[in-house]
Amino acid sequence: MSTRIAICCPGKPLRRARADKVAALAAEEFPEVALEFHEQCFVEDGHFAGDDATRLAAFLECANDPDIDAIWFGMGGYGSNRIARAAIGGLKAAAGGKDYLGYSDTGTLLGALYREGIGRPAHGPLVGDIRREGGDEVIRRAMRYLTGASTPDDLEPNLDDRPAAAFNLMTLAMLVGTEFMPDLTDHVLLVEEVGEHLYAVDRLMFHVTEHVRGIAGLRLGRVSAVPENDRPFGTDEIAIARDWCARTGVPYLGRADIGHDAANKIVPFGLAGRDLRA
Amino acid sequence: MSTRIAICCPGKPLRRARADKVAALAAEEFPEVALEFHEQCFVEDGHFAGDDATRLAAFLECANDPDIDAIWFGMGGYGSNRIARAAIGGLKAAAGGKDYLGYSDTGTLLGALYREGIGRPAHGPLVGDIRREGGDEVIRRAMRYLTGASTPDDLEPNLDDRPAAAFNLMTLAMLVGTEFMPDLTDHVLLVEEVGEHLYAVDRLMFHVTEHVRGIAGLRLGRVSAVPENDRPFGTDEIAIARDWCARTGVPYLGRADIGHDAANKIVPFGLAGRDLRA
Repeated sequence: MSTRIAICCPGKPLRRARADKVAALAAEEFPEVALEFHEQCFVEDGHFAGDDATRLAAFLECANDPDIDAIWFGMGGYGSNRIARAAIGGLKAAAGGKDYLGYSDTGTLLGALYREGIGRPAHGPLVGDIRREGGDEVIRRAMRYLTGASTPDDLEPNLDDRPAAAFNLMTLAMLVGTEFMPDLTDHVLLVEEVGEHLYAVDRLMFHVTEHVRGIAGLRLGRVSAVPENDRPFGTDEIAIARDWCARTGVPYLGRADIGHDAANKIVPFGLAGRDLRA
Repeated sequence: MSTRIAICCPGKPLRRARADKVAALAAEEFPEVALEFHEQCFVEDGHFAGDDATRLAAFLECANDPDIDAIWFGMGGYGSNRIARAAIGGLKAAAGGKDYLGYSDTGTLLGALYREGIGRPAHGPLVGDIRREGGDEVIRRAMRYLTGASTPDDLEPNLDDRPAAAFNLMTLAMLVGTEFMPDLTDHVLLVEEVGEHLYAVDRLMFHVTEHVRGIAGLRLGRVSAVPENDRPFGTDEIAIARDWCARTGVPYLGRADIGHDAANKIVPFGLAGRDLRA
């Protein structure tokens, strides 16, 4: 049976050359898959892949199409929070049967979908990850997942019998306490970060751990591309995570194999999406 | 009557040359003031002015000293959130009779003090602002305030008959929803930012406006030193503030004369601190 995957960009645009590369790989290796790039992916409007109305309309067209099986976000960037309220409000029944895959800024939409019990959101590669070294394998991982053919290596290795959720730390910090934040009580929470100073990571961990006291525990993905600061922070990201977990009574469960990189494994939200694929 | 002002640094250290310059100005122009620099101001430990225990102890020594009239924070930086719980928990009755002055990262402590009804927190210059062009006048503004001799120009000009509170936007975004966040219902909220991309300002405004629905309105201070991005955001900080206010039903009240600069006016929290001084 063929799988139809629609691609849209709730934040920043996808470069057409990257889309073409993913389309070529898909045609070669996943001939049973129809990859449908919404033209909105390539719109440029200031910071965004089109203004809010354009990005919203594309998301709703894809999500509400009963012939589409999965929404794969093209890029992160910034902006999914700007359309989240209208996006959730505009979803119809057809949106519920789908997979939704992405990470980074798109975590806002994934979180909101999970909160509302709509579809099967999962934290994992974006289409634009084709640009990374090893990008072909990243795309294969995502496409195996979206076609129900995941190998055990495709999923985060530390998933257990508890529900899970994964987020970029900054995205989560901006999500907590808002109308889009899902209830993560008893969940294992996985976080990753990129491009932030360690003092900012410390500050984000303070904020997030204050908000998620009822979680089963926290796992730390990779914290990469930390900028050079005018003075060293004094500890590393593991000590930071352990510290804030200890301060707020959240169990620190160790590392997670997620991050802004080619190794970024897939974390289906909740308990769904594992038995079918692993 | 003489005023005794104690200076400590809950985040990063103060350079001794800057402290000396402020001490000299105070001796010359405010002979009735005793400025007491806690030695902790000059400690360096990684990112911080001493480890958490050192910064906490200094704050508590100053705040719990019944002979001290005011706490003036030496520098912002990052770190006041790391000692906030123990700081609030360790305050004694003597802490209640004092002014507390600072901004930027120290807003976490100011907010927590305001939440607990301890003392008279105010958003205004730090000792380290002596380094700015026009720094002498910044220091005079702060010292006039702390000695009950403010001129009308020293206070934020838009204060009205409603209670107010002011914060650095990032500091506030990390404070909302935590155990330290004061109830700002019916308050005019003033925010300012420095050194953040406009997309980050937009993201912070999303988060903050989601959390402070019951405020009387929002005023926007200066958003300065915005880094160059790889693409323009598309709007400015005023449009950003107006947009998020409109989305969340918060009245946008216009600009505020606060910011990471020499013009930064003083905003006493609540309704206190105006009649005495203006």
